[in-house]
Amino acid sequence: MKLLLLSTPERARAWQPLFDAAGETLVVGEDAVTDPAEITHIACWMPPADPGRYPNLRAVISTGAGVDQMPALPPGVALTRTIAPGIDELVRDWVVMATLMLHRDMPRYLEQATQGDWRAHPIRAAASARVGIMGIGRIGRAAASTLSALGFDVAGWSRSGEPVDGIAIHGQSDLPAFLARSDLLICLLPLTGETRGILDDRLFVGLPENAALIHAGRGAQLDMNALGRALDSGRLRAAMLDVTDPEPLPQDHWAWRDPRVIITPHVAAQTDATEGARHALAVIEASRTGVPLPGFIDRARGY
Amino acid sequence: MKLLLLSTPERARAWQPLFDAAGETLVVGEDAVTDPAEITHIACWMPPADPGRYPNLRAVISTGAGVDQMPALPPGVALTRTIAPGIDELVRDWVVMATLMLHRDMPRYLEQATQGDWRAHPIRAAASARVGIMGIGRIGRAAASTLSALGFDVAGWSRSGEPVDGIAIHGQSDLPAFLARSDLLICLLPLTGETRGILDDRLFVGLPENAALIHAGRGAQLDMNALGRALDSGRLRAAMLDVTDPEPLPQDHWAWRDPRVIITPHVAAQTDATEGARHALAVIEASRTGVPLPGFIDRARGY
Repeated sequence: MKLLLLSTPERARAWQPLFDAAGETLVVGEDAVTDPAEITHIACWMPPADPGRYPNLRAVISTGAGVDQMPALPPGVALTRTIAPGIDELVRDWVVMATLMLHRDMPRYLEQATQGDWRAHPIRAAASARVGIMGIGRIGRAAASTLSALGFDVAGWSRSGEPVDGIAIHGQSDLPAFLARSDLLICLLPLTGETRGILDDRLFVGLPENAALIHAGRGAQLDMNALGRALDSGRLRAAMLDVTDPEPLPQDHWAWRDPRVIITPHVAAQTDATEGARHALAVIEASRTGVPLPGFIDRARGY
Repeated sequence: MKLLLLSTPERARAWQPLFDAAGETLVVGEDAVTDPAEITHIACWMPPADPGRYPNLRAVISTGAGVDQMPALPPGVALTRTIAPGIDELVRDWVVMATLMLHRDMPRYLEQATQGDWRAHPIRAAASARVGIMGIGRIGRAAASTLSALGFDVAGWSRSGEPVDGIAIHGQSDLPAFLARSDLLICLLPLTGETRGILDDRLFVGLPENAALIHAGRGAQLDMNALGRALDSGRLRAAMLDVTDPEPLPQDHWAWRDPRVIITPHVAAQTDATEGARHALAVIEASRTGVPLPGFIDRARGY
C-alpha cells in the first residue's frame, strides 16, 4: 500500500520519519506519483481534482477533524477524518474560556478598558446561567461536563436526542424549547446540509433576551448579517466566534470592529502533524487487516 | 443586641427584611444611633473613625471577604469577614477564565482583532503548561481542582506547605523552585505584611521566560512598574489583573493601553447583599450562644 500526502512541506517532514519507522511508503505530492495504480490512500484537506486517476484508491483521509470541505468521492472509496488525541480537549478549553468570557461580561470590560474606564457591573453566579449546547458529540459532552462542574445549568440539543449522563437533551423537533432556555448558546455542530445557515434570524429570535452566542462549529452555519441584526435588536448581547463566514474574515468586516463580538481566527484546535501521521498509519493498518477504518465517515449521515 | 450597619442605602434595604424576620435590630448609619452602649456589632467595609465610642462593641463584621482595609480595633472587639456562599466559586471562575485566556493567547488575538488581522498561532495543550497558584486556601484549591481537570500541570505555594490532595505544594522557603516551574502564575494571596509588594522585580525574574501573571489577590501585592519591566524584558508575555495598585486604576495609566495586559475592575467576586445579611445574623447568633464567630479573623496570622 502507498499513501499520497497532499499537504505542506512542514507536514510532510513530520510524517516521513513515522512512515519510515512503520515500514510504510509515503508519496508527497501528485508530481511524485510514478504509478497511480499503486496509490491506495490519499491524506489531504482537499482531495485531487480527479480522484478517479487512482484506480486502487481505498480511502481518503482528511488531515483535519472536519470533512465538510470534501467533495463526493468515487464509489468504493472510504472517507475518514483524523482523530488526534487532544483535539477534543483543545476545543473544549476554547469553549469553556469563551463561555466564561461572555458570562462574565468580558466584551464590556474589554471595551471599557479602551477608555480606561474602571466600572464594575453586577456579577452572576454560573448557576444562574443556562447553557445550551448544539451538538452533543465527544466535544459537546466534554464541554458539558466541565461547564456543569462549574455550576452552569447545561442542556444539549442533538439530532438523535439520545440521553447523555447528567445533561437534559432535547431532540431535533424540540429546538424551540431548547433555544428558549439557552442564555449562552454554544454551537458545536458538524457542517451538513441540515446545519448550513442554521444560526439565522429565525433561530436567534427563539433565544431569551440578552443571550450570547459561542460559535465553534463551522463558519457556513452562521448568517453573519443575522448575527448583526440580533445584536442590534438586543436579542444577543454578545458573541464569541472561532469560525466565521467567510473565513478568513475580511479585514474590513464589521464584526472585527463591533465591541460585542470577539473573534479568534479558527484556533479552537489544530491537528498536530505527528498525530495526523499516526492516524494515517492506523488507517493503512486497518485497511490491511480488514477492520473498520478509524475515523470512518458515514456520508449518508453527513458526519 | 443591636447591629450598626455602615453601608449603602441599597444594602440597608436588602438587610432590613432579613433582620425583621430574625427579630434582630438593625441600625443604619451612625446618625441613627441613640445610645452607643446598645451597639454590640458593627457591619461595615471601613469601621467608624472612633470605635471606642461603642463601649459594648463585641465584633466588627467586614461586609466583604477581605479585612486588609480594617485598622486595628479596640481590645476585646473581634473581627470577622463575610463568608458568603458562592464567593469562592465566583473567584474560581474568574481565575479559570483568565488562565485559559492567557494560555490560549487571547491578548494577542484581541490585539490582532483591532487590525482585522486573521492569523493563527500554534496552540498548546493545557497539559503543556505549568500553573503555579500562590495561596492555597479554599479558592486556590477550587481553582487547582478545575485547572487540573482541564489537564494543566498545577502546583501550589503556601505559607504552611501543608499537603493538598492531588497538587504539589511548595512551602514558604521553596518559592524559587515554585516560581521556576510556573508558566502561568496565579496570585490569590491575602494581603498581609508579608505579601505586600510580593509581586516585584525579584519575583518576576524567578519565573520562566514568557510566563504569564493572573492576579486576583490584592492590588497592593503588585508593583505595577515591576510588571511593566517584566513585560518589556520578555520575562512575562502577558498579565490579567482583577486588582491593581492603585484602585481604581487611573484612566491615563499605561496598563490600560498595553495590549499585553487585560484588566477587569475588581469583579472576580462581589458579596451579595442578602448573603451578607445572613452572615451578620449568624455572627449575632454565635455571639449570643457563645460559639466561635463565623468568619473570625486571627489578626496575628493576618487573615
